[in-house]
Amino acid sequence: MHLIDGKAIAAKINAESRAAVAELQSRGITPGLAVVLVGQDPASQAYVRSKDKTAKELGLHSVKHELPADTTQEALVAVVESLNADPLIHAILVQSPPPPHIDERAVVEAIDPRKDVDGFHPMNVGKLALGDADAFVPCTPLGCQRLLIESGIETRGARVVVLGRSMIVGKPLALLLSAKGPGGDATVTIAHSRTRDLAAVCREADILIAAIGQPEFVKADMVREGAVVIDVGINRVADPSSPKGSKLVGDVAFAEVAPKCRAITPVPGGVGPMTIAMLMHNTIASARRWAV
Amino acid sequence: MHLIDGKAIAAKINAESRAAVAELQSRGITPGLAVVLVGQDPASQAYVRSKDKTAKELGLHSVKHELPADTTQEALVAVVESLNADPLIHAILVQSPPPPHIDERAVVEAIDPRKDVDGFHPMNVGKLALGDADAFVPCTPLGCQRLLIESGIETRGARVVVLGRSMIVGKPLALLLSAKGPGGDATVTIAHSRTRDLAAVCREADILIAAIGQPEFVKADMVREGAVVIDVGINRVADPSSPKGSKLVGDVAFAEVAPKCRAITPVPGGVGPMTIAMLMHNTIASARRWAV
Repeated sequence: MHLIDGKAIAAKINAESRAAVAELQSRGITPGLAVVLVGQDPASQAYVRSKDKTAKELGLHSVKHELPADTTQEALVAVVESLNADPLIHAILVQSPPPPHIDERAVVEAIDPRKDVDGFHPMNVGKLALGDADAFVPCTPLGCQRLLIESGIETRGARVVVLGRSMIVGKPLALLLSAKGPGGDATVTIAHSRTRDLAAVCREADILIAAIGQPEFVKADMVREGAVVIDVGINRVADPSSPKGSKLVGDVAFAEVAPKCRAITPVPGGVGPMTIAMLMHNTIASARRWAV
Repeated sequence: MHLIDGKAIAAKINAESRAAVAELQSRGITPGLAVVLVGQDPASQAYVRSKDKTAKELGLHSVKHELPADTTQEALVAVVESLNADPLIHAILVQSPPPPHIDERAVVEAIDPRKDVDGFHPMNVGKLALGDADAFVPCTPLGCQRLLIESGIETRGARVVVLGRSMIVGKPLALLLSAKGPGGDATVTIAHSRTRDLAAVCREADILIAAIGQPEFVKADMVREGAVVIDVGINRVADPSSPKGSKLVGDVAFAEVAPKCRAITPVPGGVGPMTIAMLMHNTIASARRWAV
């Protein structure tokens, strides 16, 4: 069993990104990322800090906009529009989830699609489905695909089961892995809560991607001997034995599933670090496009 | 074996459309469809005539723009833009394929997404993937879904195999049938030319949708006993016994497959008539939205 080291792969991608930023800077271009956070959710604050920190480490121009929880829709859209117009900013991300009074879809649609590095604007989702090379692909699915590529796992002709049909992970992954070309050409099945005999469907997978958001949902009987398992879940569960009283687990029951696998990602340290690495990657790609 | 009568179902939908048009007209609204054809391809001319004829029969305002084969990209986009601005037009369709000197994607992106009743603009593709109710769904996949619904075939929990990953049929169908809600909730597998052991994958299907564009590709050994088969293919093949010297066949070897099926669509008379019926349906839906 091979443990796929997301931290090491993310570090490699970040090193490539650092070199790409240096090259761009030698031409007078500094890729700029703006992250907008509304409210004080501690998990969101931690994500935003982490994105800002990585961006700065790689030499990017990184801006944080921290807005109060009672920011109106109009005020938030006005911030997005000012960032759309800002030539130093190539990438805009509004940290999800916003407070409940905000219409998140309308905010995402206010972002210039050419700066939507999260890839959630309908234009980018559509371009991904259409196979356009200039689509921004959502960072987590892009990171999953990259983990497979960097680990030498062939997707072409492979049976892939994507467990979960969210627009954040499941659907874009299905589109990515079934597209023509390297890192694609897989035979993809989208499984979900309505799937009958889910265990049997999951056992068809050469590559099983768990993105269902339920702690340790995937058990050993759902995995074929020799399968590759990519665990997208990040769930905090009670753990009396830990000083914090809780721990992070994935959507896969790692201890029982790992021995059956050809390769598997751990949680934490698997898909997680890839998401921020791919955000930096998308930001740099955006800066390149704007420079043309 | 039940033969799914696409002509009868399309006639039923057209009758509903005629009633909807009458209701809109009583409020002073006549849904307007503009079809743009570049060049003189006989098959395209026949499609355009057929769309225009059906539109007029249902009481729609129907406009044909027939442009010479040497129309420039700029001139074509100018026509599209004038239709975008025309308040009597709620639906714009540029007949595919245009001559080779035309960048079809750029023309589609020039159409106002709110008039893109073909559903090929990236905004509409994205909205379909995102599950937005106001997406225009491409007419052929929408027609396939409707055939299933009208035939009382439950998609929820069903194993669906979509054979073919085109953006015209395969991918939108996969998104539609795996979406939450009635007519969706299926477990969808996208199979294609790179799929290993394609026959075995197709045999997993409770509902098999053939959209691979190869005459009589699906043989009896690829279909599970009791499956439902939807044949999207329309292929003209040589037929010395016919006065024309040719005939239309689908992507399914009908004679050998039909006896195994719970239900199957014929070619012609299956999916074909649904495409135009759904185009009228989308045009009326568009007129309703513009009237709000």
